[in-house]
Amino acid sequence: MTGQVIDGKAFAADVRAQIAEHVVRLKEENGITPGLAVILVGEDPASEVYVAAKHKQTLEVGMASFEHKLPADVSEKDLFDLIDQLNADPSVHGILCQFPVPDHLEERRVVARIDPSKDVDGLSVVNAGLLASGEKGLVSCTPLGCLMLLRDQLGNMSGKEAVVIGRSNLFGKPMGQLLLQENCTVTIAHSRTADLPEVCRRADILVAAVGRAEMVKADWVKPGATVIDVGITRIPHPEKPGKSKLLGDVAYVEVAAVADAITPVPGGVGPMTIACLLANTLTACCRAHNLDEPSGLTA
Amino acid sequence: MTGQVIDGKAFAADVRAQIAEHVVRLKEENGITPGLAVILVGEDPASEVYVAAKHKQTLEVGMASFEHKLPADVSEKDLFDLIDQLNADPSVHGILCQFPVPDHLEERRVVARIDPSKDVDGLSVVNAGLLASGEKGLVSCTPLGCLMLLRDQLGNMSGKEAVVIGRSNLFGKPMGQLLLQENCTVTIAHSRTADLPEVCRRADILVAAVGRAEMVKADWVKPGATVIDVGITRIPHPEKPGKSKLLGDVAYVEVAAVADAITPVPGGVGPMTIACLLANTLTACCRAHNLDEPSGLTA
Repeated sequence: MTGQVIDGKAFAADVRAQIAEHVVRLKEENGITPGLAVILVGEDPASEVYVAAKHKQTLEVGMASFEHKLPADVSEKDLFDLIDQLNADPSVHGILCQFPVPDHLEERRVVARIDPSKDVDGLSVVNAGLLASGEKGLVSCTPLGCLMLLRDQLGNMSGKEAVVIGRSNLFGKPMGQLLLQENCTVTIAHSRTADLPEVCRRADILVAAVGRAEMVKADWVKPGATVIDVGITRIPHPEKPGKSKLLGDVAYVEVAAVADAITPVPGGVGPMTIACLLANTLTACCRAHNLDEPSGLTA
Repeated sequence: MTGQVIDGKAFAADVRAQIAEHVVRLKEENGITPGLAVILVGEDPASEVYVAAKHKQTLEVGMASFEHKLPADVSEKDLFDLIDQLNADPSVHGILCQFPVPDHLEERRVVARIDPSKDVDGLSVVNAGLLASGEKGLVSCTPLGCLMLLRDQLGNMSGKEAVVIGRSNLFGKPMGQLLLQENCTVTIAHSRTADLPEVCRRADILVAAVGRAEMVKADWVKPGATVIDVGITRIPHPEKPGKSKLLGDVAYVEVAAVADAITPVPGGVGPMTIACLLANTLTACCRAHNLDEPSGLTA
C-alpha cells in the first residue's frame, strides 16, 4: 500500500488561480490593485533567486510588485526610512524584507518596524500575539500553507491528534496554534523530547519541521496518518556528480508505505509558501479597504 | 501511598517575602518604590473582595497601591483617559483593570489601552506575542504561578511530558508556552480531545484548567506524576447548610494516592496569582529603571 501524494505544486497553482480571480474582481468592482513590496538588502544569490520568484508570481496573479534593492551596507536608518514610507503608502498592502539581512542589521528590529497590518510574512510580535490570542492577524506563510493542505486533505480535523516536531517561532509554534484552532489535540515535540518516535506514533497528523534529512522513519508513523514534511536539506546528488538533491525530514519512500497521505520534498509544502504570501497580501488589501476577506485563504 | 501536597499558600508567602526584600533594596539603593494601580469599574462584590486583597498584599510587600474606583456607567473615554494618565505616570509600574467590566466596555480594548510594559496581568496581545516569540514580556499571573510551583517542585523539567487541559488565552495557551520554554514535550488537550483520560495518562506534569469539578480521576493520572489543579468550582457545602465549598478540576483524594505531588484546592495555585501580580509589578519597575530583574520571579 502506498499513501496518497499531496501535490503541493498543483495545490499552490490552484491557490494562485483563486487569488488571481479575487484580484480581477477587486480591480473591476473596487478599482483596487493589491500591492506587495519586497526589500532586498545586499546581494545574497539565494535571496535574489527567491525574491525574483516572488516578483514573478506577484505579477502573475495581477498584483503590483514593488522591489526595493538596498546596498549591503545600508544604515538601519535608511532601511527604516524606506519601511516607514512603505507603511504610509496606500498602494502597498504587504511588505516583506527578505532575510537574512547583513549582520549590522537586526531582523527583530526590522520586522518590528513594519506595520503589523502589512506584515505579510506574519513574523512580528503583534501578529504572533494575535494568533496566540485567537484574533485576526497575518499568519506566517509556511504554517498557513500547511494548514491549507491539511484542510484540503482532511476537512474537519476536530479531535485528531496532531504532533509538530520543531518549536521555532517561524514555524513550529504558529503551526501548533493553527492546529489548536482546528480543534486538534496538539503536541509540540523537539530536540529535548525524551522518546520522539513514540510521541510521533500518536499522531493522526504529523508535521515535521526540523531540518534533519530523513529523520522520521516508517516505524515513527501511525498507519493511516497524514504526514506533512516541512524540512529541506540539500545534499550532493548520489548519482549525478556536481548536482544536488533536496531531502525532507521524512524518509519518504518508507513512510509513504505507511501513511495515508504525505507531502513530497520538493513539490509539497515548498510551493505553498509564496502562494500564501500572495494570499496574505490579498487579505491585507481587503482589510485595508474594509472589504470582505476571501474565504479559504486565511487561518 | 499519598503524594506530597504542594503548599501554594506557604510558597506564595515566601514569594511575597522575597518581593518585600527586593522592594526594601530598591528603596534604599535606588530611591524607587514600585507602584501598582488597580482600576475597578462598578460595584461587583466579588471583584471588590479581590481588589481589596490585592491592595492589602501590595502594601504588605512595601509597594505603593493606587486604587481607582469608577462608576459602573463610566464612558470608555473616561476610562481610557485614566489609563492614559496611569501609562504616563512614572510612579505607576503596573496597571490592571479588574474584570469583568460592565457590558458597554470591551475587555479587549481596555487591555489594549494599557502600556504593554505596565500590563502586569500579561493579558495584552503584545505580551502574548512576546511570550509566543520567546522574548521578554509580562506573563499572565496564574500560569506564571504554576511555573514557579513546578520549578520549585521539579527543578529541571527538560524532556518531561506535560499535558495542559484547557486552551484559554488566559491560562492554557500561555501555560503551554511556558512549559515549552522549560523544554517539556507539551500537549494541549481540551473539550474536543478524543480520549482525554488516555492523553492525561501520558503526563509527567498534568495541569488541569477546565472548571469542571473533580473531572480528573485517579485512573487518568500516571503514577508519580506532578498534578497542578487550576480549576475552581464553588458548590454548596455537603455538610454545612448555607455554606459553600471549593472544588478543583482534580478528584483530589483519589488522585493524591497516585500522584507524586499535587496542589490542593483551595491553597494551591490560587494564592500564587496575587503573588505573581506583585512579582510582575516588581519586574516591570526594574525594567522601567533599567535595573537587573529579580531572579526566580519571572518566566
